[in-house]
Amino acid sequence: MKFKIQKKYLLNSIQAVSNAISSRTVIPILTGMKIDVTPSKIVLTGSNSDITIQSHIPSMKEEEEIITDMTAGSIVLPVPHFPEIIRKLPEDIVHVTVEDNYKTIIQSGKAVFTLYGQSSEEYPHIKINQSEDHLTLNIKDLKTLIRQTVFAVSPMETRPILTGVNVSLTNDLLTFTATDSHRLALRSINIKENNLEADSIVIPGKSLQDLNKIFDDHDGKVHMTILKNQVLFYTDHLYFLSRLLSGNYPETSRLIPNESKTTLHIFTKDLIHTIERAALLSSRDQNNVIRLDTLENNIIEISGNSPEIGNVKEQLGAVSIEGEELKISFSSRYMLDTLRTIDSERVQIDFTGAMRPFVIRTPDEDKILQLILPVRTF
Amino acid sequence: MKFKIQKKYLLNSIQAVSNAISSRTVIPILTGMKIDVTPSKIVLTGSNSDITIQSHIPSMKEEEEIITDMTAGSIVLPVPHFPEIIRKLPEDIVHVTVEDNYKTIIQSGKAVFTLYGQSSEEYPHIKINQSEDHLTLNIKDLKTLIRQTVFAVSPMETRPILTGVNVSLTNDLLTFTATDSHRLALRSINIKENNLEADSIVIPGKSLQDLNKIFDDHDGKVHMTILKNQVLFYTDHLYFLSRLLSGNYPETSRLIPNESKTTLHIFTKDLIHTIERAALLSSRDQNNVIRLDTLENNIIEISGNSPEIGNVKEQLGAVSIEGEELKISFSSRYMLDTLRTIDSERVQIDFTGAMRPFVIRTPDEDKILQLILPVRTF
Repeated sequence: MKFKIQKKYLLNSIQAVSNAISSRTVIPILTGMKIDVTPSKIVLTGSNSDITIQSHIPSMKEEEEIITDMTAGSIVLPVPHFPEIIRKLPEDIVHVTVEDNYKTIIQSGKAVFTLYGQSSEEYPHIKINQSEDHLTLNIKDLKTLIRQTVFAVSPMETRPILTGVNVSLTNDLLTFTATDSHRLALRSINIKENNLEADSIVIPGKSLQDLNKIFDDHDGKVHMTILKNQVLFYTDHLYFLSRLLSGNYPETSRLIPNESKTTLHIFTKDLIHTIERAALLSSRDQNNVIRLDTLENNIIEISGNSPEIGNVKEQLGAVSIEGEELKISFSSRYMLDTLRTIDSERVQIDFTGAMRPFVIRTPDEDKILQLILPVRTF
Repeated sequence: MKFKIQKKYLLNSIQAVSNAISSRTVIPILTGMKIDVTPSKIVLTGSNSDITIQSHIPSMKEEEEIITDMTAGSIVLPVPHFPEIIRKLPEDIVHVTVEDNYKTIIQSGKAVFTLYGQSSEEYPHIKINQSEDHLTLNIKDLKTLIRQTVFAVSPMETRPILTGVNVSLTNDLLTFTATDSHRLALRSINIKENNLEADSIVIPGKSLQDLNKIFDDHDGKVHMTILKNQVLFYTDHLYFLSRLLSGNYPETSRLIPNESKTTLHIFTKDLIHTIERAALLSSRDQNNVIRLDTLENNIIEISGNSPEIGNVKEQLGAVSIEGEELKISFSSRYMLDTLRTIDSERVQIDFTGAMRPFVIRTPDEDKILQLILPVRTF
């Protein structure tokens, strides 16, 4: 096996695939990165018990030669050594040659590295194929779906299913839902290109965070296909396979109140900054609980109290307040998690009393819904 | 006590003083920040068992009013709450008012914070005065003295004196020396303004790192004065007091070889990059030992070997190699620590054999000397 490649392309692929490689794995060969050289491309693979990432580097890109001097073969190289070596090479061109006993020579400029590789035959066989049965969405939309929901998954393994995001497809509407039972985040988008049947799966939250990380390019399209116990996201050159969580995701629609006693319209950034200040003097024991009171003349007051240290009060003008007057306490952390994912200039918050969950929506987008349970403080 | 101040000046002072405040202190009041208001200025003080930092904010700066509405008094406010509150205030002007029972109101825009302060009478009395007996140097030079020596102090408390930097003054030559007994870093500068007598003190390495951090302004002058068991560095508005280490600093001059069997002149950056690559495949058990061999035609070879993982060899052209041929092994980490502090484009390295310490100097500056002990690998 050998090849000569432009360093920047190899480095990009290595960085994506590295996200799947962990030194803490029960299968020793998975601490390495697999490289397959075929006559037309190089494929890098990284894998752990949750996800597998594969990056394909074509030998030609438009008119540009990316890879030359290719001889087919495969090898598994140690991580983090292989990525670190490529990152620090002195020149823009790298020669990689595998000799006897998986001894791999990496040469660039006057630097010559020898790495002891392993046989790729010991690497688990992971089948990753494109499929006719897939849906297609913009990478930008996938990143929005993840960003506006994944923060609300449960960090606790007591109910494992809640550590995942429920992804459901009905009538070309793709919906991500996450809840840790104190709050819920839901985001939908309409899918235009879809061959998948209605389905509901649960993807580990950690997998979606990794997926969000490797797609830093916002422009293209991404395809999603559901396999047995697995979900595959792929673009032309990047494949991301994740295991699914088994079990039934709880029915969450009944949690969402369909009436409102007090409706608040307010500027998102103003509310974020005021809550950040109130959170500075909120009790850390109680998940940084703060309080919101409606006053007259479309004014709300946000307050925090940290016994021993001090307290804070701040009045803030809302765009409008309709309905009953309200005093409610809630976790500033949950509220900030939610508000920080919202891109809209204004939010609408619907309350149905001090002890009932309240709902945050955006006026210009009907497919986002965030719900938070208040905290009893009196 | 009360005052009204431009937030940016208060924030600058708070940031400097915060470096001395730790939540892990045996004296509870020292977890707070002391504020003294006098008719002409505000003084902030932070302190721990090693250092005290004091920042003075004058009420006027040139024609600009920084502080108004001042009533004298003092208070101790909780950290990190007070700094966090100031950082997040909504407006550029802050009102601070101390009411009964040390209750302190901090108000900016519509945000009103109440902090429960403590009496400043409980705060230890720390006497910080300017002195006639001082030397004066450029902040830039002080930062160079620290940066080129402090990395070589011992991290271990087995010989406490080696955790400090030896600062000595003889004939207007100020010298900083640090050693962990495997390497030594020495830097001198000539002092033009000096009323201090010849002296030698040992300042904790940690204190000098803190001092380096708070002087991010490179332009001005700084004064140094030696008190009983303490050293004080000060500018017009900032005072930095550190305890000294007691005990005799070892005599280090006899460690420095005064002959050379092999002299290498080489470009600093080239050498750094080659050593960084060799370090990737050096044995971590042995402090990342790498090897340097002189070859013919002014070429050196740097190599690393990590059993199990692989090895690396790289040839590098030197400006000149004079004297005996050489094979030597040393810690890549020590060598990189040293080379990264050197600003000069080229370095001169003098070797006196494979098992003797070698010395790194710069050709354009005779007041820097770095020494590293080699490692026996065969």
